[in-house]
Amino acid sequence: MPKDIFKKRKQDILSKKDKSHRGKWDEKILNLCKKINSFDCYYTTSSCSGRIVLIINKERKQSGLFLKMYHNLISFKGIKKDIEEILNKIKKEDVKFKMEPCALHVACKGFKDAKELCDKAKLAGWKKSGIISINKRFVVELNSTERLEFPIIKNGKLLVNDEFLREIVKQSNKKLKKCWKKIQKLNKFLSDQK
Amino acid sequence: MPKDIFKKRKQDILSKKDKSHRGKWDEKILNLCKKINSFDCYYTTSSCSGRIVLIINKERKQSGLFLKMYHNLISFKGIKKDIEEILNKIKKEDVKFKMEPCALHVACKGFKDAKELCDKAKLAGWKKSGIISINKRFVVELNSTERLEFPIIKNGKLLVNDEFLREIVKQSNKKLKKCWKKIQKLNKFLSDQK
Repeated sequence: MPKDIFKKRKQDILSKKDKSHRGKWDEKILNLCKKINSFDCYYTTSSCSGRIVLIINKERKQSGLFLKMYHNLISFKGIKKDIEEILNKIKKEDVKFKMEPCALHVACKGFKDAKELCDKAKLAGWKKSGIISINKRFVVELNSTERLEFPIIKNGKLLVNDEFLREIVKQSNKKLKKCWKKIQKLNKFLSDQK
Repeated sequence: MPKDIFKKRKQDILSKKDKSHRGKWDEKILNLCKKINSFDCYYTTSSCSGRIVLIINKERKQSGLFLKMYHNLISFKGIKKDIEEILNKIKKEDVKFKMEPCALHVACKGFKDAKELCDKAKLAGWKKSGIISINKRFVVELNSTERLEFPIIKNGKLLVNDEFLREIVKQSNKKLKKCWKKIQKLNKFLSDQK
């Protein structure tokens, strides 16, 4: 892609209104996005610092499925309260708990730029990173591996006990912290480069 | 990479002894591997048709962590028996349950070959597919998205009840079947090409 067109697209994308579910920037990954966008050859198109969601379990994605979303550490008391609230509201649905790792989509000007970013990300612990699109531009997806996923509500009834939930809170928080460390590490690797 | 070197590597890799945990070919993905390897521009380096594992939860990968591994549909009775066996054997460890989607690693001769395979895989439902290595050769990782992951044993004690476990068996089997359909679909797309 000619240099000017990439630059123009970058300006267009970065000036767009945030369309994410949260409607605001995910602060823990903001500095990394800024760092990536400071390179002429890159621009970020989506980002997440790692998240925990309670989501209605459906075959196909559709709007309105997200019941709760957390980008910060969770507490047993807090999630228990949120689950009670969901149980009061939802009578027949199935709900799943999902902890997802930090994730970034980055458009890259050239093949070499894409490869370099993937290599750095892997060194920083973002082990599931690769080039996912090679049409008008190169798009790199960077992902880490911290995950949890299981059904939590079935037919409006809670499937798990407090002991299990306490362990889930502990493991989720540990995984979120790991993601945040990997975000800082990648930021550092890119800063060293400049 | 010159044509002859790629061909030589392909022969070397495909003649090697299987080093997987199972020690034998995963039959549900065997035809797809054969199909991929029938193209001069590709060879498979690892494959899994989707699996369920009970694994000791450790920070770092090491040998001996896998307690049970299933590549076929599971039953409540069967997994319950296996869990009892683990509880009898393991007194202090933490164990996690993991359902992982179908996965393939394919070495590709050229960039265009890699891109074409990723595009086909995505159309066949292997949504997490991309080029993960671009050093001596192009390596493509094809992954689907069906997952479950949660702690099941903590300090040698079972964390979940039968109702939860029945739901896990149901969802795991559904996800495995989805993976098998995607394997067939990708095989068909590659067959149409020939």
